[in-house]
Amino acid sequence: MAGKACNVLITGANRGLGLEMVKQLAETSCPGRRIFAGCRDPSAPKSQSLQELAKQHPGVIHVIRLDVADLSSIKESAKQVGLFLGKDGLNLLVNNAGMATHEDMKTAGPKEMQDTFNTNIMGPMLVTKEFLPYLREAAKSSGEPGMSCSKAAVINISTILASIAKVPETVAFFPVFALPYRISKAGLNMLTVCNAVEFKDDGILFALLHPGWVQTDMGGAGGAIDAQESVSGMLRVMSDLTEKQSGAFLDYNGQSLPW
Amino acid sequence: MAGKACNVLITGANRGLGLEMVKQLAETSCPGRRIFAGCRDPSAPKSQSLQELAKQHPGVIHVIRLDVADLSSIKESAKQVGLFLGKDGLNLLVNNAGMATHEDMKTAGPKEMQDTFNTNIMGPMLVTKEFLPYLREAAKSSGEPGMSCSKAAVINISTILASIAKVPETVAFFPVFALPYRISKAGLNMLTVCNAVEFKDDGILFALLHPGWVQTDMGGAGGAIDAQESVSGMLRVMSDLTEKQSGAFLDYNGQSLPW
Ligand SMILES: NC(=O)c1ccc[n+]([C@@H]2O[C@H](COP(=O)([O-])OP(=O)(O)OC[C@H]3O[C@@H](n4cnc5c(N)ncnc54)[C@H](OP(=O)(O)O)[C@@H]3O)[C@@H](O)[C@H]2O)c1
Ligand SMILES: NC(=O)c1ccc[n+]([C@@H]2O[C@H](COP(=O)([O-])OP(=O)(O)OC[C@H]3O[C@@H](n4cnc5c(N)ncnc54)[C@H](OP(=O)(O)O)[C@@H]3O)[C@@H](O)[C@H]2O)c1
Repeated sequence: MAGKACNVLITGANRGLGLEMVKQLAETSCPGRRIFAGCRDPSAPKSQSLQELAKQHPGVIHVIRLDVADLSSIKESAKQVGLFLGKDGLNLLVNNAGMATHEDMKTAGPKEMQDTFNTNIMGPMLVTKEFLPYLREAAKSSGEPGMSCSKAAVINISTILASIAKVPETVAFFPVFALPYRISKAGLNMLTVCNAVEFKDDGILFALLHPGWVQTDMGGAGGAIDAQESVSGMLRVMSDLTEKQSGAFLDYNGQSLPW
Repeated sequence: MAGKACNVLITGANRGLGLEMVKQLAETSCPGRRIFAGCRDPSAPKSQSLQELAKQHPGVIHVIRLDVADLSSIKESAKQVGLFLGKDGLNLLVNNAGMATHEDMKTAGPKEMQDTFNTNIMGPMLVTKEFLPYLREAAKSSGEPGMSCSKAAVINISTILASIAKVPETVAFFPVFALPYRISKAGLNMLTVCNAVEFKDDGILFALLHPGWVQTDMGGAGGAIDAQESVSGMLRVMSDLTEKQSGAFLDYNGQSLPW
């Protein structure tokens, strides 16, 4: 990926995996690369690390206000990003922003369900819809055959907890049930596979990545790996993706996960 | 099932598969059986067939106002049903009510997504939560070992369109994409498998059934089978379910479907 995927948008880029991905992409050389780092509150203290990183890479990292649970914010961000993009379009969209709550059936109510649904399914769906014209442009203008993350791709960050087949195993392993989160990410998996089919002829690759159990605010200090390892793994996997993997569900080591 | 599962609640019972299930269950003899037929508008013309069927089976079919997309309606219906149930509890809950819209990614917006999510995931979830005390009572009072639909069970009506593995096949076969519907039913599959794990120790069986492609308002006139065949198949499958199938995803012939 290093020398390619020049125009990239990452959502939820102010902390955790999103911030680390912006960092690693900014450090790899790619003339003319633009990294659009979406975050819902660019001026808040929680976005300070991202702002500092952006200062170290002027003209490369562009911090963009983007709340994925707010359609008007998504539309506004698409307009803003559009001003920077030339006819090359957007090569890569990483729908990384996400939230998790810990409820099981006894404790989960409509509010947790709605919020998680809005952020984890509707968010990626509406962001993808609004940025689709730019992804199409990238696919068209690339001139290359096949599909890749450096041509035109949407990577949706899923989780092993989205695997229905693995529920008995992961329930036994993880300390929390996270029912709304599991439901939302299973829905995200379905969305992504449907998108892969619907936009095949547009030359846009869609894939799902499980980052591993990572030491971030969401994964907690007990996570198995750190963000650096997770993201370098995911970027490696992404750089190897071709049209054969469109619609695939892979972990940060490239291992396929069951639905 | 014929002689068992004496207290049953079916949602969306005023037409289509729900109505046919009430009919077939009412026609099988079971002393003391009570069928609670949930529908969101009992006095509307669309509920007339159900009301007439109820008149033919007095004391057996109880028409209950139940809008699965409205938490207060769900709570009210649980209170009402509770008045009829003795210490035997509720043996079987069939979450059948559902809605489908035809959109693909280009046409689906927040409204279709929200409505479908509320009816097809939140509905079954909240109905199950509110009726859980009665299901637990049934499991406890049965005295039988193991699990079955005549002891204590929740059957969630899913669809082959919920199978992520089968997306390429079903997209090619069905005339519509039905993206919000697919996402919602994949979420329902996850919910059900999680419930099967969470309530295993309570002795409550959970399973997912695909009714086939059926000639109802939803399935359209081009459906492969009629409601009579679909429902008699599903009732046969239900009667054979044991704890081994808790969390399973089966079609109306008992064939297992992939996630
Ligand atoms: N960490 C793990 O072990 C793990 C495992 C599997 C999958 N994942 C997935 O990996 C992704 C990143 O997780 P993480 O571990 O980096 O989580 P994190 O440390 O909790 O960070 C979440 C990020 O998402 C952003 N976000 C949440 N809601 C948003 C919204 N409505 N609009 C815009 N941004 C929003 C947050 O922004 P704010 O700062 O504004 O809240 C934050 O930047 C998520 O999709 C998660 O489900 C993580
Ligand atoms: N037909 C098929 O080919 C097929 C295939 C796979 C799966 N399914 C599933 O089978 C189930 C039944 O489908 P069907 O073919 O019988 O559909 P249908 O003929 O369209 O009937 C749908 C039923 O659900 C009810 N309903 C919808 N929203 C409701 C709500 N908020 N509260 C209470 N009831 C509500 C409807 O009530 P109103 O009359 O008030 O609208 C109606 O009784 C659904 O879950 C569907 O997804 C059907």
